[in-house]
Amino acid sequence: MILKRFYDDKLAQASYLVGCSATGEACVIDPNRDIDPYIVTAAEEGLRIVAVTETHIHADYVSGSRELGHRTGATLYLSDEGDADWKYAFADEPNVRLVRHGATIRIGNVRLDVVKTPGHTPEHIAFVLTDEPATPLPLGAFTGDFVFVGDVGRPDLLERAAGFEGTMEAGARVLFESIQRFKRDYPDTLLVWPAHGSGSACGKALGGVPVSTLGYEKASNWGLRSSGEDSFVREVLSGQPEPPAYFKEMKRINKVGPAILGGFQRPPRMGAEAILTHLEDGSVIVDLRPSAEYQAAFIPGTINIPEDRSFSRWAGSLIPFDRAIYLIAGHEETAVEAVRDLAMIGLDRVEGWFGLETLQAFEASGRHLEVVAQIETGEALRRLETGDAFLLDVRGAAEVEEGRIPGSHHIALGTLPSRAGELPHDKLIIVHCHAGGRSAIGASLLRALGFTQLVNMPGGYSEYEARGLAVEAS
Amino acid sequence: MILKRFYDDKLAQASYLVGCSATGEACVIDPNRDIDPYIVTAAEEGLRIVAVTETHIHADYVSGSRELGHRTGATLYLSDEGDADWKYAFADEPNVRLVRHGATIRIGNVRLDVVKTPGHTPEHIAFVLTDEPATPLPLGAFTGDFVFVGDVGRPDLLERAAGFEGTMEAGARVLFESIQRFKRDYPDTLLVWPAHGSGSACGKALGGVPVSTLGYEKASNWGLRSSGEDSFVREVLSGQPEPPAYFKEMKRINKVGPAILGGFQRPPRMGAEAILTHLEDGSVIVDLRPSAEYQAAFIPGTINIPEDRSFSRWAGSLIPFDRAIYLIAGHEETAVEAVRDLAMIGLDRVEGWFGLETLQAFEASGRHLEVVAQIETGEALRRLETGDAFLLDVRGAAEVEEGRIPGSHHIALGTLPSRAGELPHDKLIIVHCHAGGRSAIGASLLRALGFTQLVNMPGGYSEYEARGLAVEAS
Amino acid sequence: MILKRFYDDKLAQASYLVGCSATGEACVIDPNRDIDPYIVTAAEEGLRIVAVTETHIHADYVSGSRELGHRTGATLYLSDEGDADWKYAFADEPNVRLVRHGATIRIGNVRLDVVKTPGHTPEHIAFVLTDEPATPLPLGAFTGDFVFVGDVGRPDLLERAAGFEGTMEAGARVLFESIQRFKRDYPDTLLVWPAHGSGSACGKALGGVPVSTLGYEKASNWGLRSSGEDSFVREVLSGQPEPPAYFKEMKRINKVGPAILGGFQRPPRMGAEAILTHLEDGSVIVDLRPSAEYQAAFIPGTINIPEDRSFSRWAGSLIPFDRAIYLIAGHEETAVEAVRDLAMIGLDRVEGWFGLETLQAFEASGRHLEVVAQIETGEALRRLETGDAFLLDVRGAAEVEEGRIPGSHHIALGTLPSRAGELPHDKLIIVHCHAGGRSAIGASLLRALGFTQLVNMPGGYSEYEARGLAVEAS
Amino acid sequence: MILKRFYDDKLAQASYLVGCSATGEACVIDPNRDIDPYIVTAAEEGLRIVAVTETHIHADYVSGSRELGHRTGATLYLSDEGDADWKYAFADEPNVRLVRHGATIRIGNVRLDVVKTPGHTPEHIAFVLTDEPATPLPLGAFTGDFVFVGDVGRPDLLERAAGFEGTMEAGARVLFESIQRFKRDYPDTLLVWPAHGSGSACGKALGGVPVSTLGYEKASNWGLRSSGEDSFVREVLSGQPEPPAYFKEMKRINKVGPAILGGFQRPPRMGAEAILTHLEDGSVIVDLRPSAEYQAAFIPGTINIPEDRSFSRWAGSLIPFDRAIYLIAGHEETAVEAVRDLAMIGLDRVEGWFGLETLQAFEASGRHLEVVAQIETGEALRRLETGDAFLLDVRGAAEVEEGRIPGSHHIALGTLPSRAGELPHDKLIIVHCHAGGRSAIGASLLRALGFTQLVNMPGGYSEYEARGLAVEAS
Repeated sequence: MILKRFYDDKLAQASYLVGCSATGEACVIDPNRDIDPYIVTAAEEGLRIVAVTETHIHADYVSGSRELGHRTGATLYLSDEGDADWKYAFADEPNVRLVRHGATIRIGNVRLDVVKTPGHTPEHIAFVLTDEPATPLPLGAFTGDFVFVGDVGRPDLLERAAGFEGTMEAGARVLFESIQRFKRDYPDTLLVWPAHGSGSACGKALGGVPVSTLGYEKASNWGLRSSGEDSFVREVLSGQPEPPAYFKEMKRINKVGPAILGGFQRPPRMGAEAILTHLEDGSVIVDLRPSAEYQAAFIPGTINIPEDRSFSRWAGSLIPFDRAIYLIAGHEETAVEAVRDLAMIGLDRVEGWFGLETLQAFEASGRHLEVVAQIETGEALRRLETGDAFLLDVRGAAEVEEGRIPGSHHIALGTLPSRAGELPHDKLIIVHCHAGGRSAIGASLLRALGFTQLVNMPGGYSEYEARGLAVEAS
Repeated sequence: MILKRFYDDKLAQASYLVGCSATGEACVIDPNRDIDPYIVTAAEEGLRIVAVTETHIHADYVSGSRELGHRTGATLYLSDEGDADWKYAFADEPNVRLVRHGATIRIGNVRLDVVKTPGHTPEHIAFVLTDEPATPLPLGAFTGDFVFVGDVGRPDLLERAAGFEGTMEAGARVLFESIQRFKRDYPDTLLVWPAHGSGSACGKALGGVPVSTLGYEKASNWGLRSSGEDSFVREVLSGQPEPPAYFKEMKRINKVGPAILGGFQRPPRMGAEAILTHLEDGSVIVDLRPSAEYQAAFIPGTINIPEDRSFSRWAGSLIPFDRAIYLIAGHEETAVEAVRDLAMIGLDRVEGWFGLETLQAFEASGRHLEVVAQIETGEALRRLETGDAFLLDVRGAAEVEEGRIPGSHHIALGTLPSRAGELPHDKLIIVHCHAGGRSAIGASLLRALGFTQLVNMPGGYSEYEARGLAVEAS
Repeated sequence: MILKRFYDDKLAQASYLVGCSATGEACVIDPNRDIDPYIVTAAEEGLRIVAVTETHIHADYVSGSRELGHRTGATLYLSDEGDADWKYAFADEPNVRLVRHGATIRIGNVRLDVVKTPGHTPEHIAFVLTDEPATPLPLGAFTGDFVFVGDVGRPDLLERAAGFEGTMEAGARVLFESIQRFKRDYPDTLLVWPAHGSGSACGKALGGVPVSTLGYEKASNWGLRSSGEDSFVREVLSGQPEPPAYFKEMKRINKVGPAILGGFQRPPRMGAEAILTHLEDGSVIVDLRPSAEYQAAFIPGTINIPEDRSFSRWAGSLIPFDRAIYLIAGHEETAVEAVRDLAMIGLDRVEGWFGLETLQAFEASGRHLEVVAQIETGEALRRLETGDAFLLDVRGAAEVEEGRIPGSHHIALGTLPSRAGELPHDKLIIVHCHAGGRSAIGASLLRALGFTQLVNMPGGYSEYEARGLAVEAS
Repeated sequence: MILKRFYDDKLAQASYLVGCSATGEACVIDPNRDIDPYIVTAAEEGLRIVAVTETHIHADYVSGSRELGHRTGATLYLSDEGDADWKYAFADEPNVRLVRHGATIRIGNVRLDVVKTPGHTPEHIAFVLTDEPATPLPLGAFTGDFVFVGDVGRPDLLERAAGFEGTMEAGARVLFESIQRFKRDYPDTLLVWPAHGSGSACGKALGGVPVSTLGYEKASNWGLRSSGEDSFVREVLSGQPEPPAYFKEMKRINKVGPAILGGFQRPPRMGAEAILTHLEDGSVIVDLRPSAEYQAAFIPGTINIPEDRSFSRWAGSLIPFDRAIYLIAGHEETAVEAVRDLAMIGLDRVEGWFGLETLQAFEASGRHLEVVAQIETGEALRRLETGDAFLLDVRGAAEVEEGRIPGSHHIALGTLPSRAGELPHDKLIIVHCHAGGRSAIGASLLRALGFTQLVNMPGGYSEYEARGLAVEAS
């Protein structure tokens, strides 16, 4: 038996390939849309991908199952466990097989048993892996967003992200039941291979270890240690991070069936002149530079989302799904990387990219580059006191609960596009977050939305706190 | 003034960017379809591309003028010199301006004078460059396929490649006249920047020096030294290489207006299993490996065109323009390079690529890889003598005129697809060329066309000659 | 806690980084010499590498511990468990700490307990990992070459590879005892992270799964299921693959202390002419091309070791450790990759690389490229019968035990340099292996050693067997 | 004949390869230290490099002649024209041949005639190229730093950069004489291939066209049009840019013989912790990020020289030649590029590079990152008026002559290391240049030298001028 783990840092997402070396067959579990690594790895190991499966309808990225099935001819095994709302709309395609609790998928000598594990979502299943020639004892389980290392999948996403009112408590109770069943039915030695690692918004306390055992999780994971249903429900519903706004769209795409891409496209490099057109035609223009560079000179009307580890998260929340996208980047490879990252979350309409010469050309056309002014924390507080400034805190709700600057207004960065109407146009808006990263993005977004009196307070809450200002100001 | 030369080794083709640093404007002359280098260079030099032009309707590659105009918004200046057969069909697009002899294109302080130079083609023009602030003396001319370093543009292509019967002698006489006019009208110091270098099929004796002067060419270039019209006509029509079969299609594409690509696409990596489908569905499958590797193990039905300097030439001649194309390659970058090279000559339908694991998968499916057997030259001659073999010489006509193996049949490699019907199915076909490169491609092509009794004679005519076999055998 | 696994396919070797996110400290376990990935990963996770450790003195690759300690300033924790023969010679360097059974290494809140596990080697230790803030239950163990997934570390290497006579049975018994102790002392839920995966020569049956649990191994791993000491000893000493010849040198280097490289060097590209010099001056010239390409045209005196997954293995066995090395490659990146792979096994003296133009230059200098002739299996057997050929089988001993061609002589490829004296110079040598890969390397090696009557039988034993020749011939 | 031009943008430097396709021999003229392109191009064209030559002892980059001769075995043809001060110190190496006016170098059928052309330097020679089989008329001349397109080589460098007092007028007169001789001896059609293009400090008005003719230069180049010796001398000595401080060291290195590198080294990636050591041990730490990024957060003690087109120029002036160098970069490839660029000007001691995690690690160690504050132009002028600031102008002398801000002090950036003693420690220093690029570098340098009261005025003189402040303020 051969097992390979794939981990995408930007999505904090794990997928797996399991193969039988005797027969040369392989199955991929929870593929994302960057499917080349699965194909390459299978090729290197002398395996053919004959099966593709997924634990549930993902909410945080576009599934690669359909693309991978299309490219390799593999059969897709999809859950038939959910109710009518949670059925795959493309289940009638010829290479799809629906599976329910108790089904078995055989990949050569390797056996995958389907186990229903609802809670995070109604249709959620896990796959228990047994290497039959070695021993009848199951080796491990691909647990998807059911059990993570150190945490369990949150049951509130359907309500909070997809708008299914009143489902989250019921979901939490179903999840509790799934956990008890899982603890009861499998040995403590069972390996646990979850679908996410530290940093994912599909839970609140995911660990930084890629794999664990059921026994170890029973001892260390709050969700598995918990024995009272009500206390479990309370705890699992509290302290969850805000679900990014795009999760709802991901759910929709993954249910309907993601478009077949045929590989990520290399975006054409645009002549600098075209920027003037695309600033006017409803396109979204994303400048991928580090914030410090962007703030020192940017084209008004563009948004700054730096191409770093947090790129997918903010891009998903801030870029509309129905608009053409253009990129500004220092190097072609950065633009290529962004195209991939955007496609991973369903933003497929990148039409081209602009090099940095575009900034000079913009100025040469008689327009002016702008600067995001930066304000020192003490100065910001003085302006706040005199009443001629509006202090906008774009951190997450959980952070704000732990402490905030008196007089600040809270709108989480991910919700800024829909809530910008709450902000004043006649006052200086001072944007801050924890340490300057998100406030830089937020300031660029507000500028693109037409706000002109804006400064970034890069010190953020961290500096406010460090300087004992928290006390002084209260 | 800023001047940059771009040279594509595979097309043996030169294009130029000329700009005015005072106003930041630039013009590109004879762009090919790989337009990013023009955009990047202009950006690096602080220039905007405002004009694009070309010397004539090219026959050997797809023009990038329309793509570059589309991407940058530049104006296209196209020749209006030809008769009704040689008019651009997209001249009514809003950014096109037609120009005739005597017209002037101004790029800031730089002046380009349009000069008619028919002969190679009826609509051919050249551009004489003057840097007005420096001196009224013209600096040089972009001569296209009119005057090369050491040669002149061949006037027989329309007849030989595009099928315009009876035009080549008339063309030669018109060319002679153009040359006399050019020699008369411009100073000897005039720089000559031609559109092609050594290896191009647009002439027969192009030199390996990128630039020359009119005075030097008068002294050294046979075409400019020649003073008698009739002897010129005789010489210019003799010894020209066979025009590749795809030249006719290039002419058509460039006249009608090439499709806008929006950049070369990165082809998807296919799952190995799909090879079986595409071997049957009319697709062309091109294996890009070096011939030695291919011949040692290949999938029957594929064609081998190694991704080297000659790739474009053979791809243009051997791949039909109306079929889906799949590639086999050892590395993704090789496939990406081939996609670019194919698009340069209008073969835009690459649908994906297969890694080398596909060979194993093919065997694992119960089919058999094949080998192109190789035959030693002496052994080949013995087989030929006994009458149980057919010796196929795939060299060019000019080479064959200089010497051939008695008993061999000549079909130039580029014409093999249309002439394969002349070959026997009941005899061993021994394929040879000069030194084994073209015969390897030819053998793979014949195998794909269904010939099974095939061997390659890699020693080729060069070994035959070197061993004195030429004498023995005659 | 953060845990990252690093896997080198060519060495089939795993190393690990474990860090404490609270304090930002990290430890690397069993690093190889390609240390940049550890530094990059630590940086990405916001960790500083403060400790480096290794389970034992490795025999199959050069340890990166000293290099990583030097680069980062981290403390090296090295085993003090072995007897006088198995002490690290650089233990007196200021950043080295020796550890014995019972010692504890703390990395922030993470605890690593040192456990003696002799058998594979006398000084072997494992590290049991506990994430104290989570639970006192240990999470897993880094077992090095003690327990693999599906196998245990072989105790015969010291005798078979390093020449310590009479140690392998004693080693096997010590290993049995270590296993019993490990089974007794730790919970079944303990994760097992071994130092090698499938394909390593440090065991005979390593699995293709990266991680397991003690409980699962008790059920499925023959070495842990075995309860009788004598039968365990018999089984663990039988069927082990030949240890590559370079293992002895690795042991020496790792004990003495590997040279600090300061990064792998980018080899200079040589002018083609220099090949003539280096063919004469005692250098080793390794041609990295695929065998099919090499055999079609090679420079006599060079060795062909294709730059693929088996490169390190054959390079270690066939290249002397005291000679300058030059490479021949089609692309610079292939040469760069080979420099890395060679340095990983202590072959640090790559002085430069030659492009493929060198082959043309070699011919242009009046010398001749050669071809490795290939012989069809049936023809080879006929030549063998008539007595005018010598059939050389270069497969491993275990393969030969399962079946051989009557009349063949067996010398494993890895031992060919020292045993070439057994071969005849006055007869045709037909080289074969299983399917043509190793025989190609072997033939190139013999040619470089001066044998000129050589052919490769690429069909190998696999074709012999498939065609039922095994029966016919017996 | 084959001719290839190589152009290095950062050095604004041209070199050439000329070969004979009949015999396969080639010569390289004025190679720089990045010799792989010459070797690769020769290989692609089927040529062997048998000769290397240079027009003079270069002052602006390290010659690659010795490296290329060493790598290929080619003969070096070096000038013997200068007096005792200007002799190559490695002329006694076995592959060196000294040449004087009238000598001929034959590369197959290609002839290079050596012509003395002193003025820029005493030993300067040019090479006149004749393709004998084509015509006895010479095709062109490699003119080095004698005649450029639009300019002539400056004769003041020996005095201004290398400290040879009282030589510049004599040099100018010799140059005048060389020009007259060149105009007299060669035809107007002669191509002129100079060693530098626009942006080089070896002249004052180099054009952006790569090639010209003698006739065209006679008409357009001030230096060739000039007929009076005295007026020529006056003009050629006026308005020359400051020679960078490192030119003297380049002269020394190129005369003595540059060290053989054996290729540029790939620098090791350092563990972040090591930054603390190297901040203290006399190393130079160069941060390669764009200035906007650097100024937003940098490690005090580092210098910021962005890895862009001006990198070589400022690195040569600001980095001492006797110190170990470490780099800070966002990507490995940026560090690799910087190693190459530094080696091109003789800064060979790059010992390693640090990733951006080093900034976090620096803060985590209890130290503080700093910010270069930026001041708005109007505010700066107010501070200057009140007398509590010192305005430092780091532009070049020629720019300052055209206009300056009243009250500013001028020290050109390249001379700042030696003249920093003139600056006050008790006042705010406001650094400015034309548009913020050089002042950013200057501010980082002053901070590293211990100045702590520093701001950058990014608007620079350009904004001062644009806003009409020039008038107001006077």
